[in-house]
Amino acid sequence: MKGHGTENDFLVLYDPEGTSYTKLDADTVRAVCHRRRGVGADGVLRLVRTNAVEPAELQGADPGTAEWFMDFRNADGSVGEMCGNGVRVCAAYLLAHGLADPDADLPIATRAGVKVVRSQPDGNLCVDMGVARFPASDGLVVSAAGRSWPATAVDMGNPHAVAFVDDLAEPGPLLEAPTWSPADVFPYGVNVEFALRRGDRHLAMRVHERGVGETRSCGTGACAVAATAARLDGVSPPASYRIDVPGGSLTVDLRADGRVDLAGPAELTARGEFDLPDV
Amino acid sequence: MKGHGTENDFLVLYDPEGTSYTKLDADTVRAVCHRRRGVGADGVLRLVRTNAVEPAELQGADPGTAEWFMDFRNADGSVGEMCGNGVRVCAAYLLAHGLADPDADLPIATRAGVKVVRSQPDGNLCVDMGVARFPASDGLVVSAAGRSWPATAVDMGNPHAVAFVDDLAEPGPLLEAPTWSPADVFPYGVNVEFALRRGDRHLAMRVHERGVGETRSCGTGACAVAATAARLDGVSPPASYRIDVPGGSLTVDLRADGRVDLAGPAELTARGEFDLPDV
Repeated sequence: MKGHGTENDFLVLYDPEGTSYTKLDADTVRAVCHRRRGVGADGVLRLVRTNAVEPAELQGADPGTAEWFMDFRNADGSVGEMCGNGVRVCAAYLLAHGLADPDADLPIATRAGVKVVRSQPDGNLCVDMGVARFPASDGLVVSAAGRSWPATAVDMGNPHAVAFVDDLAEPGPLLEAPTWSPADVFPYGVNVEFALRRGDRHLAMRVHERGVGETRSCGTGACAVAATAARLDGVSPPASYRIDVPGGSLTVDLRADGRVDLAGPAELTARGEFDLPDV
Repeated sequence: MKGHGTENDFLVLYDPEGTSYTKLDADTVRAVCHRRRGVGADGVLRLVRTNAVEPAELQGADPGTAEWFMDFRNADGSVGEMCGNGVRVCAAYLLAHGLADPDADLPIATRAGVKVVRSQPDGNLCVDMGVARFPASDGLVVSAAGRSWPATAVDMGNPHAVAFVDDLAEPGPLLEAPTWSPADVFPYGVNVEFALRRGDRHLAMRVHERGVGETRSCGTGACAVAATAARLDGVSPPASYRIDVPGGSLTVDLRADGRVDLAGPAELTARGEFDLPDV
Protein backbone atom coordinates (compact mmCIF):
# COMPACT_ATOMS: atom_id res chain seq x y z
CA MET A 1 0.00 0.00 0.00
CA LYS A 2 0.95 3.63 -0.29
CA GLY A 3 0.45 6.02 2.58
CA HIS A 4 1.70 9.34 3.89
CA GLY A 5 2.01 11.43 7.03
CA THR A 6 2.01 15.17 6.29
CA GLU A 7 3.17 14.30 2.74
CA ASN A 8 6.09 12.17 3.87
CA ASP A 9 5.08 9.19 1.73
CA PHE A 10 5.89 5.50 1.91
CA LEU A 11 5.19 2.18 0.30
CA VAL A 12 4.09 -0.31 2.95
CA LEU A 13 5.16 -3.87 2.15
CA TYR A 14 3.20 -6.31 4.32
CA ASP A 15 5.53 -9.23 4.86
CA PRO A 16 4.39 -10.93 8.10
CA GLU A 17 6.60 -14.01 7.69
CA GLY A 18 9.63 -12.09 6.48
CA THR A 19 9.78 -13.92 3.17
CA SER A 20 10.36 -10.73 1.15
CA TYR A 21 13.50 -9.73 3.01
CA THR A 22 15.93 -11.24 0.53
CA LYS A 23 14.02 -9.73 -2.40
CA LEU A 24 14.07 -6.20 -1.03
CA ASP A 25 17.58 -5.21 -2.00
CA ALA A 26 18.74 -1.62 -2.49
CA ASP A 27 18.15 -1.72 -6.26
CA THR A 28 14.55 -2.83 -5.75
CA VAL A 29 13.92 -0.12 -3.19
CA ARG A 30 15.34 2.55 -5.50
CA ALA A 31 13.23 1.19 -8.37
CA VAL A 32 9.89 1.21 -6.56
CA CYS A 33 10.59 4.58 -4.92
CA HIS A 34 11.55 6.30 -8.19
CA ARG A 35 8.89 8.96 -8.66
CA ARG A 36 8.59 8.43 -12.42
CA ARG A 37 10.07 5.06 -13.32
CA GLY A 38 8.47 3.43 -10.26
CA VAL A 39 5.51 4.07 -7.99
CA GLY A 40 7.30 6.83 -6.14
CA ALA A 41 7.79 7.38 -2.40
CA ASP A 42 10.23 8.68 0.22
CA GLY A 43 10.87 5.12 1.36
CA VAL A 44 9.65 1.58 1.92
CA LEU A 45 8.23 0.31 5.22
CA ARG A 46 8.39 -3.49 5.36
CA LEU A 47 6.14 -4.76 8.14
CA VAL A 48 7.37 -8.06 9.55
CA ARG A 49 6.33 -9.97 12.66
CA THR A 50 9.17 -9.60 15.14
CA ASN A 51 9.32 -13.40 15.59
CA ALA A 52 10.19 -13.68 11.89
CA VAL A 53 13.03 -11.14 12.00
CA GLU A 54 16.68 -11.98 12.45
CA PRO A 55 17.71 -10.80 15.96
CA ALA A 56 20.54 -8.73 14.48
CA GLU A 57 17.98 -6.64 12.57
CA LEU A 58 16.15 -5.76 15.77
CA GLN A 59 19.30 -4.19 17.25
CA GLY A 60 18.53 -5.32 20.75
CA ALA A 61 14.82 -4.48 20.77
CA ASP A 62 13.02 -7.24 22.64
CA PRO A 63 10.65 -8.94 20.18
CA GLY A 64 8.49 -9.83 23.17
CA THR A 65 7.44 -6.21 23.64
CA ALA A 66 6.33 -5.64 20.04
CA GLU A 67 4.52 -7.90 17.62
CA TRP A 68 5.65 -5.93 14.56
CA PHE A 69 8.97 -4.70 13.25
CA MET A 70 9.26 -1.74 10.87
CA ASP A 71 12.05 -2.44 8.37
CA PHE A 72 12.52 1.11 7.07
CA ARG A 73 14.44 1.79 3.85
CA ASN A 74 15.13 5.20 2.41
CA ALA A 75 14.35 5.95 -1.24
CA ASP A 76 18.09 5.78 -2.01
CA GLY A 77 18.08 2.12 -0.93
CA SER A 78 19.86 2.67 2.37
CA VAL A 79 18.63 1.11 5.61
CA GLY A 80 16.83 3.59 7.89
CA GLU A 81 16.62 3.50 11.63
CA MET A 82 13.50 5.39 12.56
CA CYS A 83 11.03 7.80 11.01
CA GLY A 84 8.32 9.54 13.01
CA ASN A 85 5.99 9.80 10.02
CA GLY A 86 6.79 6.29 8.81
CA VAL A 87 6.02 4.61 12.11
CA ARG A 88 2.64 6.36 12.17
CA VAL A 89 1.91 5.13 8.63
CA CYS A 90 2.81 1.60 9.79
CA ALA A 91 0.37 1.97 12.67
CA ALA A 92 -2.33 3.21 10.27
CA TYR A 93 -1.77 0.12 8.14
CA LEU A 94 -2.01 -2.28 11.09
CA LEU A 95 -5.13 -0.56 12.43
CA ALA A 96 -6.85 -0.44 9.01
CA HIS A 97 -6.31 -4.17 8.59
CA GLY A 98 -7.47 -5.22 12.05
CA LEU A 99 -3.95 -6.22 13.03
CA ALA A 100 -3.80 -3.94 16.05
CA ASP A 101 -6.19 -2.84 18.79
CA PRO A 102 -7.18 0.83 18.30
CA ASP A 103 -7.86 1.19 22.04
CA ALA A 104 -4.45 0.00 23.21
CA ASP A 105 -0.90 1.24 22.93
CA LEU A 106 0.72 -0.19 19.80
CA PRO A 107 4.43 -0.89 20.22
CA ILE A 108 6.39 -1.15 16.95
CA ALA A 109 9.98 -2.34 16.93
CA THR A 110 12.40 -0.19 14.90
CA ARG A 111 16.16 -0.13 14.52
CA ALA A 112 16.10 2.75 17.01
CA GLY A 113 14.21 0.72 19.61
CA VAL A 114 10.54 0.03 20.28
CA LYS A 115 8.27 3.00 19.53
CA VAL A 116 4.79 3.19 21.03
CA VAL A 117 1.96 4.56 18.87
CA ARG A 118 -1.45 5.60 20.18
CA SER A 119 -4.68 6.41 18.30
CA GLN A 120 -6.15 9.75 19.28
CA PRO A 121 -9.87 10.58 19.37
CA ASP A 122 -9.34 13.01 16.45
CA GLY A 123 -8.06 10.16 14.27
CA ASN A 124 -4.46 11.31 14.45
CA LEU A 125 -1.72 8.94 15.50
CA CYS A 126 0.72 9.85 18.24
CA VAL A 127 4.18 8.36 18.74
CA ASP A 128 6.60 8.69 21.64
CA MET A 129 9.77 10.02 19.99
CA GLY A 130 11.99 9.81 23.06
CA VAL A 131 13.99 12.58 24.69
CA ALA A 132 15.27 15.80 23.09
CA ARG A 133 18.85 16.51 24.14
CA PHE A 134 20.80 19.73 23.66
CA PRO A 135 24.50 19.17 22.95
CA ALA A 136 26.75 22.17 23.57
CA SER A 137 26.42 24.44 20.53
CA ASP A 138 27.50 27.93 21.64
CA GLY A 139 28.23 30.08 18.62
CA LEU A 140 26.65 27.63 16.19
CA VAL A 141 25.64 29.32 12.94
CA VAL A 142 23.92 27.88 9.87
CA SER A 143 24.15 29.52 6.46
CA ALA A 144 22.10 29.37 3.27
CA ALA A 145 21.46 31.69 0.35
CA GLY A 146 24.35 33.93 1.44
CA ARG A 147 22.85 34.57 4.87
CA SER A 148 23.59 33.18 8.32
CA TRP A 149 21.51 32.57 11.42
CA PRO A 150 22.42 31.54 14.97
CA ALA A 151 21.25 27.98 15.59
CA THR A 152 20.70 25.46 18.37
CA ALA A 153 21.90 21.86 18.14
CA VAL A 154 19.29 19.27 19.13
CA ASP A 155 19.74 15.51 19.35
CA MET A 156 16.54 13.53 18.73
CA GLY A 157 18.48 10.32 18.13
CA ASN A 158 19.56 12.07 14.94
CA PRO A 159 21.23 15.50 14.78
CA HIS A 160 19.35 18.74 14.16
CA ALA A 161 20.23 22.43 13.93
CA VAL A 162 17.30 24.77 14.53
CA ALA A 163 17.52 28.38 13.30
CA PHE A 164 14.82 31.01 13.73
CA VAL A 165 13.98 33.18 10.72
CA ASP A 166 11.69 36.16 10.22
CA ASP A 167 10.36 34.80 6.92
CA LEU A 168 10.41 31.19 5.71
CA ALA A 169 11.55 32.42 2.30
CA GLU A 170 14.82 33.81 3.73
CA PRO A 171 16.87 30.63 3.19
CA GLY A 172 15.99 30.63 -0.51
CA PRO A 173 15.07 27.50 -2.50
CA LEU A 174 17.51 25.26 -0.54
CA LEU A 175 18.73 23.53 -3.68
CA GLU A 176 21.95 22.92 -1.79
CA ALA A 177 22.45 21.84 1.79
CA PRO A 178 22.90 24.65 4.34
CA THR A 179 26.37 24.87 5.79
CA TRP A 180 27.25 25.28 9.47
CA SER A 181 30.03 26.56 11.64
CA PRO A 182 31.93 25.37 13.64
CA ALA A 183 32.07 22.42 11.22
CA ASP A 184 33.00 19.88 13.92
CA VAL A 185 29.68 20.25 15.75
CA PHE A 186 28.13 17.85 13.23
CA PRO A 187 30.85 15.58 11.85
CA TYR A 188 28.26 13.31 10.17
CA GLY A 189 26.02 16.05 8.78
CA VAL A 190 22.86 17.53 10.22
CA ASN A 191 19.18 18.10 9.51
CA VAL A 192 18.56 21.85 9.42
CA GLU A 193 15.24 23.38 10.45
CA PHE A 194 14.33 27.00 9.67
CA ALA A 195 11.62 27.93 12.15
CA LEU A 196 9.21 30.85 12.25
CA ARG A 197 7.14 31.85 15.29
CA ARG A 198 3.49 32.17 14.27
CA GLY A 199 1.82 32.52 17.67
CA ASP A 200 1.79 31.19 21.18
CA ARG A 201 3.27 27.68 20.99
CA HIS A 202 2.69 27.71 17.26
CA LEU A 203 5.54 27.64 14.76
CA ALA A 204 6.08 26.91 11.10
CA MET A 205 9.20 25.32 9.68
CA ARG A 206 11.06 24.27 6.59
CA VAL A 207 13.56 21.44 6.78
CA HIS A 208 16.58 20.34 4.81
CA GLU A 209 17.16 16.68 5.58
CA ARG A 210 20.70 15.35 5.63
CA GLY A 211 21.40 13.41 2.46
CA VAL A 212 17.90 14.00 1.07
CA GLY A 213 17.23 17.69 0.45
CA GLU A 214 14.28 19.84 1.41
CA THR A 215 11.28 17.70 2.34
CA ARG A 216 7.61 18.27 3.03
CA SER A 217 7.83 17.08 6.60
CA CYS A 218 10.24 15.70 9.18
CA GLY A 219 8.92 14.26 12.43
CA THR A 220 12.13 14.49 14.44
CA GLY A 221 12.63 17.99 13.00
CA ALA A 222 9.24 19.11 14.28
CA CYS A 223 10.13 17.76 17.73
CA ALA A 224 13.48 19.55 17.61
CA VAL A 225 11.80 22.85 16.72
CA ALA A 226 9.25 22.59 19.54
CA ALA A 227 11.89 21.61 22.10
CA THR A 228 14.13 24.49 21.02
CA ALA A 229 11.32 27.04 21.13
CA ALA A 230 10.37 25.93 24.65
CA ARG A 231 13.99 26.15 25.79
CA LEU A 232 14.57 29.61 24.32
CA ASP A 233 11.22 30.94 25.53
CA GLY A 234 11.56 29.50 29.05
CA VAL A 235 8.48 27.29 28.68
CA SER A 236 8.48 24.33 31.08
CA PRO A 237 6.94 21.00 30.09
CA PRO A 238 4.30 19.80 29.84
CA ALA A 239 3.62 22.00 26.82
CA SER A 240 1.92 21.35 23.53
CA TYR A 241 3.15 22.93 20.28
CA ARG A 242 1.62 23.13 16.84
CA ILE A 243 4.29 22.85 14.15
CA ASP A 244 3.26 23.64 10.57
CA VAL A 245 5.37 21.85 7.98
CA PRO A 246 5.03 22.31 4.22
CA GLY A 247 2.99 19.07 4.00
CA GLY A 248 0.56 19.76 6.83
CA SER A 249 0.50 20.30 10.55
CA LEU A 250 1.90 18.27 13.44
CA THR A 251 1.40 18.45 17.19
CA VAL A 252 4.42 18.07 19.45
CA ASP A 253 3.83 17.46 23.14
CA LEU A 254 6.77 18.08 25.42
CA ARG A 255 6.00 15.83 28.37
CA ALA A 256 6.83 16.48 32.00
CA ASP A 257 9.04 13.36 32.03
CA GLY A 258 11.24 14.89 29.29
CA ARG A 259 9.95 12.69 26.48
CA VAL A 260 8.44 14.10 23.30
CA ASP A 261 5.20 12.94 21.65
CA LEU A 262 4.59 13.58 17.95
CA ALA A 263 0.99 13.47 16.67
CA GLY A 264 -0.50 13.99 13.25
CA PRO A 265 -2.46 12.40 10.42
CA ALA A 266 -1.42 9.20 8.68
CA GLU A 267 -3.37 8.26 5.56
CA LEU A 268 -3.41 5.18 3.36
CA THR A 269 -4.14 6.17 -0.22
CA ALA A 270 -3.59 3.31 -2.66
CA ARG A 271 -2.89 -0.39 -2.88
CA GLY A 272 -1.25 -2.30 -5.66
CA GLU A 273 1.44 -4.49 -7.11
CA PHE A 274 4.69 -3.50 -8.66
CA ASP A 275 6.58 -4.91 -11.62
CA LEU A 276 10.29 -4.48 -11.07
CA PRO A 277 11.55 -2.23 -13.86
CA ASP A 278 15.01 -2.37 -15.31
CA VAL A 279 17.33 -0.40 -13.04
CA MET B 1 -1.78 0.84 -13.96
CA LYS B 2 1.20 3.17 -13.79
CA GLY B 3 3.54 3.56 -16.73
CA HIS B 4 6.05 5.98 -18.17
CA GLY B 5 7.80 6.99 -21.35
CA THR B 6 11.23 8.52 -20.74
CA GLU B 7 10.05 9.34 -17.19
CA ASN B 8 6.90 11.14 -18.31
CA ASP B 9 4.61 9.09 -16.07
CA PHE B 10 0.88 8.37 -16.15
CA LEU B 11 -1.83 6.46 -14.41
CA VAL B 12 -3.73 4.38 -16.96
CA LEU B 13 -7.40 3.98 -16.08
CA TYR B 14 -8.89 1.14 -18.12
CA ASP B 15 -12.52 2.12 -18.63
CA PRO B 16 -13.69 0.31 -21.79
CA GLU B 17 -17.37 1.11 -21.32
CA GLY B 18 -16.80 4.71 -20.24
CA THR B 19 -18.47 4.22 -16.87
CA SER B 20 -15.73 6.07 -14.95
CA TYR B 21 -16.11 9.29 -16.90
CA THR B 22 -18.41 10.99 -14.43
CA LYS B 23 -16.20 9.93 -11.51
CA LEU B 24 -13.02 11.32 -12.99
CA ASP B 25 -13.48 14.97 -12.12
CA ALA B 26 -10.66 17.47 -11.77
CA ASP B 27 -10.41 17.00 -7.98
CA THR B 28 -10.02 13.25 -8.39
CA VAL B 29 -7.33 13.67 -11.03
CA ARG B 30 -5.41 16.09 -8.83
CA ALA B 31 -5.75 13.71 -5.87
CA VAL B 32 -4.45 10.59 -7.62
CA CYS B 33 -1.67 12.52 -9.38
CA HIS B 34 -0.41 14.19 -6.19
CA ARG B 35 3.11 12.83 -5.74
CA ARG B 36 2.82 12.48 -1.97
CA ARG B 37 -0.83 12.52 -1.00
CA GLY B 38 -1.76 10.29 -3.96
CA VAL B 39 -0.04 7.76 -6.18
CA GLY B 40 1.75 10.44 -8.17
CA ALA B 41 1.97 10.98 -11.93
CA ASP B 42 2.13 13.65 -14.62
CA GLY B 43 -1.40 12.80 -15.68
CA VAL B 44 -4.19 10.26 -16.10
CA LEU B 45 -4.85 8.36 -19.32
CA ARG B 46 -8.40 6.99 -19.36
CA LEU B 47 -8.73 4.32 -22.05
CA VAL B 48 -12.28 4.12 -23.39
CA ARG B 49 -13.68 2.30 -26.40
CA THR B 50 -14.52 4.97 -28.96
CA ASN B 51 -18.06 3.58 -29.28
CA ALA B 52 -18.60 4.41 -25.60
CA VAL B 53 -17.38 8.02 -25.84
CA GLU B 54 -19.62 11.03 -26.35
CA PRO B 55 -19.05 12.31 -29.93
CA ALA B 56 -18.23 15.77 -28.60
CA GLU B 57 -15.25 14.34 -26.70
CA LEU B 58 -13.79 12.86 -29.88
CA GLN B 59 -13.63 16.31 -31.50
CA GLY B 60 -14.45 15.03 -34.95
CA ALA B 61 -12.22 11.97 -34.91
CA ASP B 62 -14.06 9.14 -36.66
CA PRO B 63 -14.60 6.38 -34.07
CA GLY B 64 -14.59 3.94 -37.00
CA THR B 65 -10.89 4.45 -37.53
CA ALA B 66 -9.85 3.79 -33.92
CA GLU B 67 -11.16 1.31 -31.39
CA TRP B 68 -9.74 3.23 -28.42
CA PHE B 69 -9.92 6.81 -27.21
CA MET B 70 -7.27 8.32 -24.94
CA ASP B 71 -8.97 10.66 -22.47
CA PHE B 72 -5.88 12.55 -21.29
CA ARG B 73 -5.93 14.68 -18.13
CA ASN B 74 -3.05 16.71 -16.81
CA ALA B 75 -1.97 16.40 -13.17
CA ASP B 76 -3.60 19.78 -12.46
CA GLY B 77 -6.98 18.30 -13.43
CA SER B 78 -7.25 20.04 -16.78
CA VAL B 79 -8.27 18.20 -19.95
CA GLY B 80 -5.34 17.48 -22.26
CA GLU B 81 -5.41 17.11 -26.00
CA MET B 82 -2.46 14.96 -26.93
CA CYS B 83 0.77 13.72 -25.39
CA GLY B 84 3.40 11.86 -27.40
CA ASN B 85 4.65 9.92 -24.39
CA GLY B 86 1.13 9.31 -23.08
CA VAL B 87 -0.19 7.83 -26.32
CA ARG B 88 2.77 5.42 -26.36
CA VAL B 89 2.00 4.37 -22.77
CA CYS B 90 -1.62 3.76 -23.84
CA ALA B 91 -0.36 1.57 -26.68
CA ALA B 92 1.91 -0.33 -24.27
CA TYR B 93 -1.12 -0.98 -22.04
CA LEU B 94 -3.28 -2.25 -24.91
CA LEU B 95 -0.48 -4.45 -26.24
CA ALA B 96 0.37 -5.89 -22.81
CA HIS B 97 -3.26 -6.85 -22.27
CA GLY B 98 -3.83 -8.44 -25.67
CA LEU B 99 -6.17 -5.64 -26.68
CA ALA B 100 -4.20 -4.69 -29.79
CA ASP B 101 -2.30 -6.55 -32.51
CA PRO B 102 1.47 -5.98 -32.13
CA ASP B 103 1.99 -6.60 -35.85
CA ALA B 104 -0.48 -3.97 -37.04
CA ASP B 105 -0.75 -0.21 -36.88
CA LEU B 106 -2.64 0.82 -33.74
CA PRO B 107 -4.77 3.93 -34.22
CA ILE B 108 -5.70 5.73 -30.97
CA ALA B 109 -8.22 8.56 -30.98
CA THR B 110 -7.18 11.68 -29.06
CA ARG B 111 -8.60 15.17 -28.76
CA ALA B 112 -5.98 16.19 -31.34
CA GLY B 113 -7.17 13.57 -33.85
CA VAL B 114 -6.36 9.91 -34.42
CA LYS B 115 -2.71 9.02 -33.73
CA VAL B 116 -1.18 5.85 -35.16
CA VAL B 117 1.25 3.88 -32.99
CA ARG B 118 3.54 1.11 -34.26
CA SER B 119 5.61 -1.45 -32.35
CA GLN B 120 9.23 -1.51 -33.41
CA PRO B 121 11.48 -4.60 -33.45
CA ASP B 122 13.56 -3.06 -30.62
CA GLY B 123 10.47 -2.95 -28.38
CA ASN B 124 10.10 0.79 -28.66
CA LEU B 125 6.80 2.35 -29.69
CA CYS B 126 6.60 4.86 -32.51
CA VAL B 127 3.85 7.42 -33.02
CA ASP B 128 3.13 9.68 -35.97
CA MET B 129 3.13 13.17 -34.43
CA GLY B 130 1.97 15.03 -37.54
CA VAL B 131 3.69 17.92 -39.28
CA ALA B 132 6.16 20.42 -37.81
CA ARG B 133 5.36 23.96 -38.95
CA PHE B 134 7.54 27.04 -38.60
CA PRO B 135 5.56 30.23 -37.95
CA ALA B 136 7.40 33.46 -38.70
CA SER B 137 9.67 34.17 -35.72
CA ASP B 138 12.41 36.51 -36.97
CA GLY B 139 14.15 38.15 -34.02
CA LEU B 140 12.60 35.77 -31.49
CA VAL B 141 14.60 35.63 -28.27
CA VAL B 142 14.05 33.57 -25.12
CA SER B 143 15.52 34.54 -21.77
CA ALA B 144 16.27 32.70 -18.54
CA ALA B 145 18.73 33.13 -15.67
CA GLY B 146 19.58 36.63 -16.88
CA ARG B 147 20.71 35.41 -20.32
CA SER B 148 19.06 35.44 -23.73
CA TRP B 149 19.26 33.19 -26.78
CA PRO B 150 17.89 33.50 -30.31
CA ALA B 151 15.08 31.00 -30.79
CA THR B 152 12.95 29.40 -33.48
CA ALA B 153 9.16 29.07 -33.19
CA VAL B 154 7.82 25.61 -34.04
CA ASP B 155 4.18 24.51 -34.15
CA MET B 156 3.67 20.80 -33.42
CA GLY B 157 -0.04 21.31 -32.75
CA ASN B 158 1.20 23.10 -29.64
CA PRO B 159 3.68 26.00 -29.60
CA HIS B 160 7.41 25.59 -29.05
CA ALA B 161 10.43 27.89 -28.96
CA VAL B 162 13.74 26.11 -29.58
CA ALA B 163 16.97 27.79 -28.46
CA PHE B 164 20.46 26.36 -28.92
CA VAL B 165 22.85 26.55 -25.97
CA ASP B 166 26.52 25.66 -25.51
CA ASP B 167 25.86 24.00 -22.16
CA LEU B 168 22.56 22.64 -20.85
CA ALA B 169 23.30 24.28 -17.49
CA GLU B 170 23.23 27.78 -19.03
CA PRO B 171 19.50 28.40 -18.42
CA GLY B 172 19.95 27.71 -14.69
CA PRO B 173 17.49 25.70 -12.58
CA LEU B 174 14.42 26.96 -14.54
CA LEU B 175 12.41 27.48 -11.36
CA GLU B 176 10.52 30.14 -13.29
CA ALA B 177 9.26 30.03 -16.85
CA PRO B 178 11.61 31.49 -19.47
CA THR B 179 10.38 34.73 -21.01
CA TRP B 180 10.33 35.58 -24.71
CA SER B 181 10.35 38.58 -26.98
CA PRO B 182 8.46 39.78 -28.96
CA ALA B 183 5.75 38.83 -26.48
CA ASP B 184 3.01 38.58 -29.11
CA VAL B 185 4.63 35.62 -30.88
CA PHE B 186 3.10 33.31 -28.26
CA PRO B 187 -0.04 34.95 -26.87
CA TYR B 188 -1.04 31.71 -25.07
CA GLY B 189 2.40 30.81 -23.73
CA VAL B 190 4.98 28.45 -25.14
CA ASN B 191 6.98 25.33 -24.39
CA VAL B 192 10.66 26.26 -24.40
CA GLU B 193 13.38 23.79 -25.41
CA PHE B 194 17.07 24.44 -24.73
CA ALA B 195 18.96 22.24 -27.18
CA LEU B 196 22.60 21.21 -27.34
CA ARG B 197 24.26 19.61 -30.36
CA ARG B 198 26.05 16.43 -29.32
CA GLY B 199 26.97 14.95 -32.68
CA ASP B 200 25.68 14.29 -36.16
CA ARG B 201 21.85 14.24 -35.87
CA HIS B 202 22.22 13.83 -32.14
CA LEU B 203 21.06 16.49 -29.68
CA ALA B 204 20.27 16.80 -26.01
CA MET B 205 17.58 19.06 -24.60
CA ARG B 206 15.94 20.45 -21.50
CA VAL B 207 12.35 21.59 -21.66
CA HIS B 208 10.17 23.98 -19.70
CA GLU B 209 6.56 23.02 -20.38
CA ARG B 210 3.93 25.73 -20.46
CA GLY B 211 1.95 25.69 -17.23
CA VAL B 212 3.92 22.75 -15.80
CA GLY B 213 7.58 23.64 -15.29
CA GLU B 214 10.71 21.77 -16.24
CA THR B 215 9.93 18.15 -17.05
CA ARG B 216 11.91 14.97 -17.68
CA SER B 217 10.64 14.60 -21.22
CA CYS B 218 8.38 16.20 -23.81
CA GLY B 219 7.50 14.31 -26.99
CA THR B 220 6.40 17.28 -29.06
CA GLY B 221 9.43 19.19 -27.74
CA ALA B 222 11.80 16.49 -28.99
CA CYS B 223 10.11 16.66 -32.41
CA ALA B 224 10.42 20.46 -32.43
CA VAL B 225 14.13 20.25 -31.59
CA ALA B 226 14.86 17.72 -34.37
CA ALA B 227 12.85 19.67 -36.95
CA THR B 228 14.61 22.92 -36.00
CA ALA B 229 18.08 21.35 -36.13
CA ALA B 230 17.35 19.94 -39.60
CA ARG B 231 16.10 23.30 -40.82
CA LEU B 232 19.07 25.27 -39.46
CA ASP B 233 21.61 22.68 -40.66
CA GLY B 234 20.08 22.32 -44.14
CA VAL B 235 19.28 18.62 -43.64
CA SER B 236 16.51 17.39 -45.94
CA PRO B 237 14.10 14.68 -44.82
CA PRO B 238 14.06 11.78 -44.49
CA ALA B 239 16.42 12.15 -41.53
CA SER B 240 16.57 10.39 -38.18
CA TYR B 241 17.60 12.25 -35.01
CA ARG B 242 18.46 11.04 -31.55
CA ILE B 243 17.20 13.44 -28.90
CA ASP B 244 18.40 12.91 -25.32
CA VAL B 245 15.98 14.21 -22.71
CA PRO B 246 16.60 14.19 -18.94
CA GLY B 247 14.45 11.04 -18.60
CA GLY B 248 15.99 9.02 -21.41
CA SER B 249 16.44 9.06 -25.14
CA LEU B 250 13.96 9.44 -28.00
CA THR B 251 14.25 8.93 -31.74
CA VAL B 252 12.64 11.49 -34.04
CA ASP B 253 12.25 10.59 -37.71
CA LEU B 254 11.60 13.48 -40.06
CA ARG B 255 9.78 11.78 -42.92
CA ALA B 256 9.98 12.71 -46.58
CA ASP B 257 6.24 13.48 -46.56
CA GLY B 258 6.82 16.17 -43.92
CA ARG B 259 5.37 14.20 -41.01
CA VAL B 260 7.33 13.48 -37.85
CA ASP B 261 7.58 10.09 -36.09
CA LEU B 262 8.49 9.89 -32.42
CA ALA B 263 9.85 6.60 -31.05
CA GLY B 264 11.01 5.54 -27.62
CA PRO B 265 10.39 3.21 -24.71
CA ALA B 266 7.06 2.94 -22.88
CA GLU B 267 7.05 0.88 -19.69
CA LEU B 268 4.28 -0.33 -17.40
CA THR B 269 5.55 -0.48 -13.84
CA ALA B 270 2.76 -1.04 -11.32
CA ARG B 271 -0.90 -1.87 -11.01
CA GLY B 272 -3.26 -1.03 -8.22
CA GLU B 273 -6.30 0.60 -6.74
CA PHE B 274 -6.66 4.04 -5.29
CA ASP B 275 -8.64 5.30 -2.33
CA LEU B 276 -9.76 8.85 -2.94
CA PRO B 277 -8.13 10.99 -0.27
CA ASP B 278 -9.57 14.17 1.12
CA VAL B 279 -8.73 16.97 -1.27
